[in-house]
Amino acid sequence: MNEFIYVKRVYYDDTDAGGVVYHANYLKFMAQARSEWLLSFGCNAKTFEEQDFFFVVRSAELDFLKPARLYDELEIISRVVHFGRVSMHYEHIIRATENPTLIFYKGLVKIVCVNSKIKPRALPTIILSGLQS
Amino acid sequence: MNEFIYVKRVYYDDTDAGGVVYHANYLKFMAQARSEWLLSFGCNAKTFEEQDFFFVVRSAELDFLKPARLYDELEIISRVVHFGRVSMHYEHIIRATENPTLIFYKGLVKIVCVNSKIKPRALPTIILSGLQS
Amino acid sequence: MNEFIYVKRVYYDDTDAGGVVYHANYLKFMAQARSEWLLSFGCNAKTFEEQDFFFVVRSAELDFLKPARLYDELEIISRVVHFGRVSMHYEHIIRATENPTLIFYKGLVKIVCVNSKIKPRALPTIILSGLQS
Amino acid sequence: MNEFIYVKRVYYDDTDAGGVVYHANYLKFMAQARSEWLLSFGCNAKTFEEQDFFFVVRSAELDFLKPARLYDELEIISRVVHFGRVSMHYEHIIRATENPTLIFYKGLVKIVCVNSKIKPRALPTIILSGLQS
Repeated sequence: MNEFIYVKRVYYDDTDAGGVVYHANYLKFMAQARSEWLLSFGCNAKTFEEQDFFFVVRSAELDFLKPARLYDELEIISRVVHFGRVSMHYEHIIRATENPTLIFYKGLVKIVCVNSKIKPRALPTIILSGLQS
Repeated sequence: MNEFIYVKRVYYDDTDAGGVVYHANYLKFMAQARSEWLLSFGCNAKTFEEQDFFFVVRSAELDFLKPARLYDELEIISRVVHFGRVSMHYEHIIRATENPTLIFYKGLVKIVCVNSKIKPRALPTIILSGLQS
Repeated sequence: MNEFIYVKRVYYDDTDAGGVVYHANYLKFMAQARSEWLLSFGCNAKTFEEQDFFFVVRSAELDFLKPARLYDELEIISRVVHFGRVSMHYEHIIRATENPTLIFYKGLVKIVCVNSKIKPRALPTIILSGLQS
Repeated sequence: MNEFIYVKRVYYDDTDAGGVVYHANYLKFMAQARSEWLLSFGCNAKTFEEQDFFFVVRSAELDFLKPARLYDELEIISRVVHFGRVSMHYEHIIRATENPTLIFYKGLVKIVCVNSKIKPRALPTIILSGLQS
C-alpha cells in the first residue's frame, strides 16, 4: 500500500512544561503530513476551494505511546487504509527517524470531503489517483 | 454522576484559515477543562509533582460534529466515566453556551497516572474523592 | 486614561519545555485582551467585516521581564496610548493577579485599520468612542 | 556578516480565521530558525543545560509588512547584529522563497544568556565561534 513520509523536528513551541511534546500537537504533525502528501502531487487548498471541495477532520482515534522531546526528529508515516465515496481513513505512525522501532504515537483520522455549505460530496478523482499511485 | 463545566471563548489564535476552530485545539480546551476541575478542589500540578504523581494522556477518541467559530462561547462539560487503579476515562462534550443542543465536539480521553520514570502508579486518593464529590 | 483588564490563567498549552510560558504566547494573551475589550462594548469581528473594516497588527515592541509559569493567574492591563486616523497604539502590561508589582511582560502594539484590500482606512467611530468612554 | 537561512512552509495550524499567518506565529518561526542555526554547528539545548546555560528572549521589535498565507514557503534569514558579554541581538527577515523581494516580516530579538537561577552569565564561546564562523 502507498505511504508518505513527512519529517518534522520538535521545537520549543511544540513542547510543554512537562518537558515533552504537548499531546494536541501530534494532531498538527499528522495534518502537516497530509498537506505535504497532497502538495507532493500538486494538490493544494486553493485548487480545491476554487472547485468547492473542502476537507474536514470528522473523527480521530489516538494512541500516545512514548513522549517525544525537544529536538527529536520525527517521521510521520501516513497511509490511507480506507477510501469511502466521500471520506478517507488515514493511519499515521509517528516514530523516531534515528530509531524506527521507537514509536511515539499512532493515529487513525477520518477525513470527509464537503462543499462550502458543509454537505458531503464525492472525493475528487485527483485525490484518489494521487494517494494511490 | 459528577460533572464539571468550563467556559471558553474562541479567539483568533484558536482558529485557522478555514474560518473555524483548528481541530487540534479542541484537545487543548478539554485539557484546560480537566485542569480547572482539579484546581477547583485544590489540586495543581506542583502539589502532585512534589509527590511524584504525573498525569499523561494515553489515548483519545474524538468526534468533530460541528465547527465552532470566532468569538463563540463554548461550554466544555466533563465527566469521569470510569476510574481504573491507575487511570481515568474522561468524557467531554463541547457545546454552545447559548444553545446547549448545538454540540460541536465529543471526546473520550484516557489519562494514566505515572511517576517521574513514567511507570504507572495508583491514582492519588485526593483525585478520586475530588472528582467524585 | 481608560483601561481594560483581562484575566487569563496559564495552562499547559501556554508553556514550553523550559517550564515557563512560551514567549510568543504573550502576544496571544494581548490579542485576546484587545478582543474582550472590543466585545465589552458590543464590537466583534463580524460587525466590522460586514462593513469592510479589518484590524491588523502592524508592529510591536515587547519586553520580557519575568517568566510566568503553569497555573499562574495573569492580568493583562490594556490602554490605548495614541489614536491616529487609521491606527491605535495599545500599551499592555501583564502582571500577577495576586501580586500586582510582579510584572511579567510589557508590550506596545500598533494596530492599523484596513479594508479587505488591505488599504488603510479611518478608524470606525464606534471604536473611538468605545475605547475612550 | 554571517547569516543562516531556515525554510518553513505555512500550514493550517499557522493561520487564523483572517486567512493569513497568525501574527504571534512569526515569533515561533524566528525561534525555530535560531534553534536550527545552533543545531547546525552541534549545539542543542541539552548540551547547554548540562552546563547551566539557558537562553531567554529578553525583548523584541517586530514589523509586520505583508501577510503570509497558507502553503507559502518562507525563508527566515537570521543574522547576529550585536554580541554583548551576556546577550545577542538577532535580526530576522522573513521573505517568500520564490520572490525574495516580498518581505513579510522583520524582527529584532535580544537573547540573554542566564544560569538556572536566571542570573545573567557570559555567552559560551562555542556560541560565539559558531555564529561567527
